[in-house]
Amino acid sequence: MRSPTASVKARVRELLPYSLTTESARVKINQNENPWDAASSIKQEVFARLCERAWSRYPDFVPAALHERLAAFAGWKSDGIIAGNGSNELIQALLMVTVGEGTRVVISEPTFALYRQITTILGGEVVSVPLTNGFEYDLKALRNTIETTEPAVTIICSPNNPTGSVLANDCVAELAEASRGLIVIDEAYFEFAGATAVPLLERHANLVILRTFSKALALAALRVGYLLAAPELAREISKAVLPYNLNAVSQSAAEVVIEHYETEFEPLVERIIGERERLHAELARIPGLAPVRSRGNFMIVRSAIEPRRIFKELLRRGILIRDVSGYPMLKEYFRVSVGTPDENDSLIAALREIYA
Amino acid sequence: MRSPTASVKARVRELLPYSLTTESARVKINQNENPWDAASSIKQEVFARLCERAWSRYPDFVPAALHERLAAFAGWKSDGIIAGNGSNELIQALLMVTVGEGTRVVISEPTFALYRQITTILGGEVVSVPLTNGFEYDLKALRNTIETTEPAVTIICSPNNPTGSVLANDCVAELAEASRGLIVIDEAYFEFAGATAVPLLERHANLVILRTFSKALALAALRVGYLLAAPELAREISKAVLPYNLNAVSQSAAEVVIEHYETEFEPLVERIIGERERLHAELARIPGLAPVRSRGNFMIVRSAIEPRRIFKELLRRGILIRDVSGYPMLKEYFRVSVGTPDENDSLIAALREIYA
Repeated sequence: MRSPTASVKARVRELLPYSLTTESARVKINQNENPWDAASSIKQEVFARLCERAWSRYPDFVPAALHERLAAFAGWKSDGIIAGNGSNELIQALLMVTVGEGTRVVISEPTFALYRQITTILGGEVVSVPLTNGFEYDLKALRNTIETTEPAVTIICSPNNPTGSVLANDCVAELAEASRGLIVIDEAYFEFAGATAVPLLERHANLVILRTFSKALALAALRVGYLLAAPELAREISKAVLPYNLNAVSQSAAEVVIEHYETEFEPLVERIIGERERLHAELARIPGLAPVRSRGNFMIVRSAIEPRRIFKELLRRGILIRDVSGYPMLKEYFRVSVGTPDENDSLIAALREIYA
Repeated sequence: MRSPTASVKARVRELLPYSLTTESARVKINQNENPWDAASSIKQEVFARLCERAWSRYPDFVPAALHERLAAFAGWKSDGIIAGNGSNELIQALLMVTVGEGTRVVISEPTFALYRQITTILGGEVVSVPLTNGFEYDLKALRNTIETTEPAVTIICSPNNPTGSVLANDCVAELAEASRGLIVIDEAYFEFAGATAVPLLERHANLVILRTFSKALALAALRVGYLLAAPELAREISKAVLPYNLNAVSQSAAEVVIEHYETEFEPLVERIIGERERLHAELARIPGLAPVRSRGNFMIVRSAIEPRRIFKELLRRGILIRDVSGYPMLKEYFRVSVGTPDENDSLIAALREIYA
């Protein structure tokens, strides 16, 4: 009998799955999560809204009420917004409607691995522009590549996971002008940078912005993301978004979180930014370590000791970090998320001990 | 400036979005939902499990605990199971890893519209084998088409939405033998037919089965589906399943529902089957109506009066049905889900009045 995987496209069979081994630890700073959980009053409010509705009934075909609130929250038109099961689902939908065999997609690596993974599955050709040696976006190289290869899509993660690099708005505007294709800015971590490309949307109809509730908004467990774009473009991307993609709980939770953003979440963002700066300063003082300035809620750190060993040493001490040494350019680096003050103290103490 | 949608593939721009107008009504029998909501004790148990975990933390990368339970529940190997955000997500992942430009996908229409939609977006070519005049699967035609066109994938919805037709296991086995590609059986409604192709999985490594929690298991609001296949094949399909695709609430809810299946849900399935038979008999007695035998929790009904008018007349009376007259072969038909005994009585009385 023929192998059942013979129907699977060769380029998919060759692909390694994007995966993460699951370890548990007292201090979990491996996934750029918000270290503070949503307040119990917020959870109760979500439960209350959920008790009002039948679980046996489908959620909204399109979550229009949430789109309206996201519009007010983000400062954009509700018919230019799509909410999804995490922003991953939305980048997938965007690539599904734009990428076929040989379609070029420009990314700047090292970056979030999923852009390359989905493009490859869809048969697209990834054109990768390396970050500069200082881990900044290389505007000139990006512009050149866009002009010469004419990609259907360019994806920039800003602040970039895992390096924390930001592409300034005048640079985003320059790329949007230079490109005949779409420019996607993944703003998963924008709250920690205090910068957003949303004001550019009105002038640049080929600009798409992705956002998530999984980081600053502390809702990673519930998987909510959203996309902002010209309504005409959002309508096309929607064709690849599955009906009822956002479950009723996540929809309610996102609504409740938005209602409490200023009182409950904004102060946490401020604390995380403060802790990020403190953590950077403390790590810089440890001989053998060189943390890289980041505008996310995480940072990469160059390590004189092999990152794989640091990972193991920290895990033994109850601290789970991310070994990013397999990424391009990052052979000597590991990544840490910014935790609570106590968690950061634990990390600093453990690293001092390891490097002593 | 160039239109922002110029980067969108032409075949996507030509596509009409799959959509559903949202009307509300006292009796909602338009989406084949379970008319009985999950018991409040079940909801409380889900809330309790949710309070134990931080919402700010990602769910499992792969929901291994749920996979284990699904394995025991469905009688298949846990490494041959993928849980998803509704079974729609899983059919999308399966098509993403198998379909490129010009890849042939066989379906039998009229059927669930999403198979054609996703295949088209991915550049595949849909080869459609009509159901027989009596709305049965045409085994001979299917087999012929598979042998002559050698599709990468054949998708059969059994019981079929919207006709309720079932493809018997010996026929499934025959198609699996005849095909070099995958045979996908969408068993969204299998509980109402009391039949499943799961026993064929061991012998037919090219067989894939899709299941959902949205129908018999009364969890449409929470979006849970699962896929059963040879582990080797499941591993390839997983490459197109987004990480953290299943949110923590849906994961917990699915676990709780499985634990209470026999006591809480199986009796409801029996009641729905009983009501389906009663509804069929009552509708058959109304001159002008000809209900079609179905093994799902719904049925199509041929109507002497234009289906669009019936839809409006019923909506005026607080009853929301599905007008399926736009589907191939179904110009004279509407579809109703089987509701509670009271809801079915309302439908029967309203139709008697309209046809009087």
